[in-house]
Amino acid sequence: MTGEVLLHHRITVRFSDCDPLGHVNNATYLTYLEEARIILWRQQLGSWARQAAETGPRGEGFILARAEVDFRSQVRDGDELEVRLALGSFGRTSATYEYEIVDRPSGRIVCAAKTVQVWIDYDTGRPTPITEETKEKLRRPV
Amino acid sequence: MTGEVLLHHRITVRFSDCDPLGHVNNATYLTYLEEARIILWRQQLGSWARQAAETGPRGEGFILARAEVDFRSQVRDGDELEVRLALGSFGRTSATYEYEIVDRPSGRIVCAAKTVQVWIDYDTGRPTPITEETKEKLRRPV
Amino acid sequence: MTGEVLLHHRITVRFSDCDPLGHVNNATYLTYLEEARIILWRQQLGSWARQAAETGPRGEGFILARAEVDFRSQVRDGDELEVRLALGSFGRTSATYEYEIVDRPSGRIVCAAKTVQVWIDYDTGRPTPITEETKEKLRRPV
Amino acid sequence: MTGEVLLHHRITVRFSDCDPLGHVNNATYLTYLEEARIILWRQQLGSWARQAAETGPRGEGFILARAEVDFRSQVRDGDELEVRLALGSFGRTSATYEYEIVDRPSGRIVCAAKTVQVWIDYDTGRPTPITEETKEKLRRPV
Repeated sequence: MTGEVLLHHRITVRFSDCDPLGHVNNATYLTYLEEARIILWRQQLGSWARQAAETGPRGEGFILARAEVDFRSQVRDGDELEVRLALGSFGRTSATYEYEIVDRPSGRIVCAAKTVQVWIDYDTGRPTPITEETKEKLRRPV
Repeated sequence: MTGEVLLHHRITVRFSDCDPLGHVNNATYLTYLEEARIILWRQQLGSWARQAAETGPRGEGFILARAEVDFRSQVRDGDELEVRLALGSFGRTSATYEYEIVDRPSGRIVCAAKTVQVWIDYDTGRPTPITEETKEKLRRPV
Repeated sequence: MTGEVLLHHRITVRFSDCDPLGHVNNATYLTYLEEARIILWRQQLGSWARQAAETGPRGEGFILARAEVDFRSQVRDGDELEVRLALGSFGRTSATYEYEIVDRPSGRIVCAAKTVQVWIDYDTGRPTPITEETKEKLRRPV
Repeated sequence: MTGEVLLHHRITVRFSDCDPLGHVNNATYLTYLEEARIILWRQQLGSWARQAAETGPRGEGFILARAEVDFRSQVRDGDELEVRLALGSFGRTSATYEYEIVDRPSGRIVCAAKTVQVWIDYDTGRPTPITEETKEKLRRPV
């Protein structure tokens, strides 16, 4: 990861995160990354997700445009993980985040990922510039 | 089931519906029951779930108060199921639904269930009587 | 709950545990109950779930036969919960567990539940008596 | 997509595939892609997933090494989708698949994706060459 780590988020793998092959299902990794982003944004931007859920999304906020995930090692029920989330870079209407998911006991990186988010106006559904004030908030470690 | 079957809903088990024991995870059965209800209500009451999702729930509608599920046989990836949903009975502010989930090739009942829903005013969050007009809609097979 | 609480398990609600109505989806409560059982059994019986996942289930163990869940209050993204799990009673080839899910800040019970598990021989797939030695282990708080 | 489409797989969005923002959750797209692969491989290679689930994985098979997903449009409860899956290319011990998820009524591409799978010997956990015979099977449309 190139950027400063803004959040260290600990996860214990749930039994139901795993699939018939006995390891964490590939889709669940996106859930782990999302959970880290949501926790970061809740601290930086206020309780955005809850508000969006209650009234429908209002104002401006991110939507996910792209995800790249490298699955490096299998992870199993009960494993103790840490998601490290760094801000990669800003575009005019977007931000890139980088992630490492680490097996806590061994320090092994089990997953590396990158996501691109676009900042949109929820009313129009269109990309809109991220203001300097918002960028300032989004750079803040929590 | 005591009531008339209002909906026959076909489901093919997804790989990700299954857990490390290689069968459909117990929580997924509630997802199958919910999907049957949602499809029923979409036909009977209009596209309630989508509207609720977009603006937050508005007006009146059901919330789930209780579920009872008997898990009778294991079901596996790729199995072809049918959810049969019947209206059990109405209370003043509630309705009971009954379900059987059947393995289509064999006709075996793999799961039997019952749920109780309470009709609430989403603005106040309080139970409210189900009108005769709504009951009429809810009795309609789809 | 009538029995002694054997496990207090803390859960933070994930964003993805929630559905378009903005609250924890009903199926997710079964996931929370399951996670508590798995953690209890891992301590009491050894790492059963992981072993079962790696080789297929072997020897003897529980399968879920029935679940009853009362949904009392809505729970939302980021909420801090505690699952309390008590052993209800033993049958010859079964055990009943009782649960309360509590909102930690308020102490409010958001969900009460009961499950029945049958002890089976995984090779034959048939119920088999729970030995006194196993019952002893299953009574142990963790 | 550059390769021939080997599978057209129809999916109806489940209510529980959606999150508090009222649209299909990003992780669910990986579930849709996986379901297409599993169905393809079940036809091409035999009922691999089920066997793996019952005994633990045996012999040789794919594990997911990388996924890239572009989320182009929001999808909602009840939407009718089609996953198109094409074989991209083979490496010595790997294969690349390409996907488009299409909204059936409009023909709009709502998601484009690519995954890299590595062919491993499940006993050693190490990459192993894909034989010509296996490649022949994997090229077959279903």
